[in-house]
Amino acid sequence: MADISDKGVTQRVAIAGGRIRIGREAFNLLSEGRLPKGDPLAMAEIAGIQAAKQTPTLLPLCHPISLNRVMVHSVLRPQDHSVELYCVAEIAEKTGVEMEALTGLSVALLTIWDLTKPVNAALEITNTRLIYKSGGKRGTWIHPDGIPDEVEAILAELE
Amino acid sequence: MADISDKGVTQRVAIAGGRIRIGREAFNLLSEGRLPKGDPLAMAEIAGIQAAKQTPTLLPLCHPISLNRVMVHSVLRPQDHSVELYCVAEIAEKTGVEMEALTGLSVALLTIWDLTKPVNAALEITNTRLIYKSGGKRGTWIHPDGIPDEVEAILAELE
Amino acid sequence: MADISDKGVTQRVAIAGGRIRIGREAFNLLSEGRLPKGDPLAMAEIAGIQAAKQTPTLLPLCHPISLNRVMVHSVLRPQDHSVELYCVAEIAEKTGVEMEALTGLSVALLTIWDLTKPVNAALEITNTRLIYKSGGKRGTWIHPDGIPDEVEAILAELE
Amino acid sequence: MADISDKGVTQRVAIAGGRIRIGREAFNLLSEGRLPKGDPLAMAEIAGIQAAKQTPTLLPLCHPISLNRVMVHSVLRPQDHSVELYCVAEIAEKTGVEMEALTGLSVALLTIWDLTKPVNAALEITNTRLIYKSGGKRGTWIHPDGIPDEVEAILAELE
Amino acid sequence: MADISDKGVTQRVAIAGGRIRIGREAFNLLSEGRLPKGDPLAMAEIAGIQAAKQTPTLLPLCHPISLNRVMVHSVLRPQDHSVELYCVAEIAEKTGVEMEALTGLSVALLTIWDLTKPVNAALEITNTRLIYKSGGKRGTWIHPDGIPDEVEAILAELE
Amino acid sequence: MADISDKGVTQRVAIAGGRIRIGREAFNLLSEGRLPKGDPLAMAEIAGIQAAKQTPTLLPLCHPISLNRVMVHSVLRPQDHSVELYCVAEIAEKTGVEMEALTGLSVALLTIWDLTKPVNAALEITNTRLIYKSGGKRGTWIHPDGIPDEVEAILAELE
Repeated sequence: MADISDKGVTQRVAIAGGRIRIGREAFNLLSEGRLPKGDPLAMAEIAGIQAAKQTPTLLPLCHPISLNRVMVHSVLRPQDHSVELYCVAEIAEKTGVEMEALTGLSVALLTIWDLTKPVNAALEITNTRLIYKSGGKRGTWIHPDGIPDEVEAILAELE
Repeated sequence: MADISDKGVTQRVAIAGGRIRIGREAFNLLSEGRLPKGDPLAMAEIAGIQAAKQTPTLLPLCHPISLNRVMVHSVLRPQDHSVELYCVAEIAEKTGVEMEALTGLSVALLTIWDLTKPVNAALEITNTRLIYKSGGKRGTWIHPDGIPDEVEAILAELE
Repeated sequence: MADISDKGVTQRVAIAGGRIRIGREAFNLLSEGRLPKGDPLAMAEIAGIQAAKQTPTLLPLCHPISLNRVMVHSVLRPQDHSVELYCVAEIAEKTGVEMEALTGLSVALLTIWDLTKPVNAALEITNTRLIYKSGGKRGTWIHPDGIPDEVEAILAELE
Repeated sequence: MADISDKGVTQRVAIAGGRIRIGREAFNLLSEGRLPKGDPLAMAEIAGIQAAKQTPTLLPLCHPISLNRVMVHSVLRPQDHSVELYCVAEIAEKTGVEMEALTGLSVALLTIWDLTKPVNAALEITNTRLIYKSGGKRGTWIHPDGIPDEVEAILAELE
Repeated sequence: MADISDKGVTQRVAIAGGRIRIGREAFNLLSEGRLPKGDPLAMAEIAGIQAAKQTPTLLPLCHPISLNRVMVHSVLRPQDHSVELYCVAEIAEKTGVEMEALTGLSVALLTIWDLTKPVNAALEITNTRLIYKSGGKRGTWIHPDGIPDEVEAILAELE
Repeated sequence: MADISDKGVTQRVAIAGGRIRIGREAFNLLSEGRLPKGDPLAMAEIAGIQAAKQTPTLLPLCHPISLNRVMVHSVLRPQDHSVELYCVAEIAEKTGVEMEALTGLSVALLTIWDLTKPVNAALEITNTRLIYKSGGKRGTWIHPDGIPDEVEAILAELE
């Protein structure tokens, strides 16, 4: 763990995004709320929030921090039978909050996996990336691919 | 959590794979052991093993199980400046072990992220998939894309 | 922790019940799905399942066990503006599973508290009791007050 | 998890109370220190303190916070063969501390359950309520039923 | 984590011992029950039991196992103002249980440290060793220094 | 848990040291990197960092705190076939950080035990002590035996 005692406290936000391809059959069942083990999106949201709080337990070099807010948003993508998730994490601490957003996102995606795997074993998680971060001495950073519309809407709501 | 009391106990293995693209600069530093926060591959291996044991804490519908073995293997891929990780999980229990392999894999990939992000913020995790599972009433399942050579070697060693 | 090495392994079920009085206003908002922080019943179900798995971490003398199944059921009671929860836990182990059912129940009730407290601070949890347990050398036990109709339905479904 | 970044930091105290009815036989054994598995009150105190620290792990929407103090007090009530527990939690944070007091209380009560159940299966936890909270923008709140004498004594000691 | 799938299930016991030197003043206060933060021996016993259950979370290569029993015994040693602790762990599993006994012991010793440090900062933990283990393919093993009388008494009680 | 709400926030450092005697054979294997289960020193470092973060979960009266930094250093001692470990913990909080340094140290030593026990069962952990602490109202404290050279080097680096 790096020393963070000289860093200043600023408000920091990080947004991570990622996608799980579940195939036509599972996509239709999920859209219609007919998956046998329950609603994956509601459960993914809670599991993602809980996992973001466990980040320092999971990642050896992450500091224990006091998260101000964690949110998980989901978007159904019929074009490729996938679900896109965004995880927003916000703190007022000396260190960044990317890993918390990415950990919440990854566990939320795995929760969808767990609930759709009875229908399809050949699932795939792709495109896990940091989309946006603000705060800290380097200021705001935006992924080279830009910010998806849904994340623009989340950011507008945060302000 | 689904009822598993009527399921039989069989030996089960699951292998999950996934990839993190880290870019040319971080890839070179990692290959040469010069990343500032330590060796990501050694740390990813331990973090992945520890996370696989936390699967029922992280995923709401996963049962607490007694893992017989967890392993994390890494392969450097200079062709696209990525690291491919494989996580093997093995149990003698009534339920499958895919989610343990996938959870170990995901946290191992995030550990590499955490140690390479000082060099490159635009990292990407892709191709997270179940490659192989055996045991249970459905028997052995292999991903439609087949089994990579490294996983063939792991399977040969398991037997 | 008591020694359990000589006990036999049998299938065991425990069902615990308890009630949270939330008052007219919160009850109406909950019934209509209009509580500001989300759906307490869905969240209570997941939090209860997760907490049941944490029982040996929380209660000093509880053994680590492999739960086969945990379920949380909720019943709205307009007559006293309360929510009754039932938590079912099932194992094939040497020790009883009452404390797992009671821990899942208690945390599920606290989750409803957390989501209704913005509307009403004077909440009350009452009537937390073991309703039913089966398995073990003493066989089936039923609470002196008998089994509520909802629990009869749960038991019928379990068989 | 709600956003708390704009809230001010104030000193906050919450006191929760609850009761477990254990019946004449278990009450006498407990009073005389003759319960087979050890002293439930000493163990309940430690389990309650440990559980209060786990509140954000157990309740999905609770923020990770730095507790300044947690205490568990017990009062034997021969009139109805019950034990009344009070849990006090104190922080200097932006969010309230009720859920920490209630979680510590609930797990302390369950610990007494676990140690008295060899004597009596028909135990009951009742009257779990928030008695007092101070700090935050709404200031001090007192339960409509007022403050029991034991809690007055605790509050006098806190000042 | 090593593969344990081919190992047979046997009853296994491990006993670890260790000592904390606390100095004359703290030893007298402890013996007379006058340490300011409570009774270290009672608290050490509970903390040790809880920690033994966390062994696979703390030690990377330890398997999750179902402990049948954990006990912590303490012996006051006026001759060198120390407290000797013994931790007994018992399982019916495929792997050994030494690390569980040693982890329970170490955290029990640290708990005594935490409660005596207001009186003496120059504490010392010494002599942490495995005293006895039975079960597994190698059978019973006894430390070259033999078995202390207190441990003989514990073993007599176990049979 | 003692009340810490009136204490001031200062920068605090604690350094704990301890030693594990592993015997000639295991020492030679470890020095040459030939122990069968992997490199104990690398694994001990990570396990120690992770355990220091778990201190409030393990020790009943420890407050949840935000560690700024944890480090584990190892020194091979051929003279007595032992490994000496030092654990440094640093916070900006109201309470001391000794227990975090000692918990990280103890679990790091146990990790070395776990990896060397296939070679030698008669291991021993000795000399666990607090070497140095700074910050807090009592200022800097140094163990009566003074500061080993390796710790001087660590302190020089911290400044």
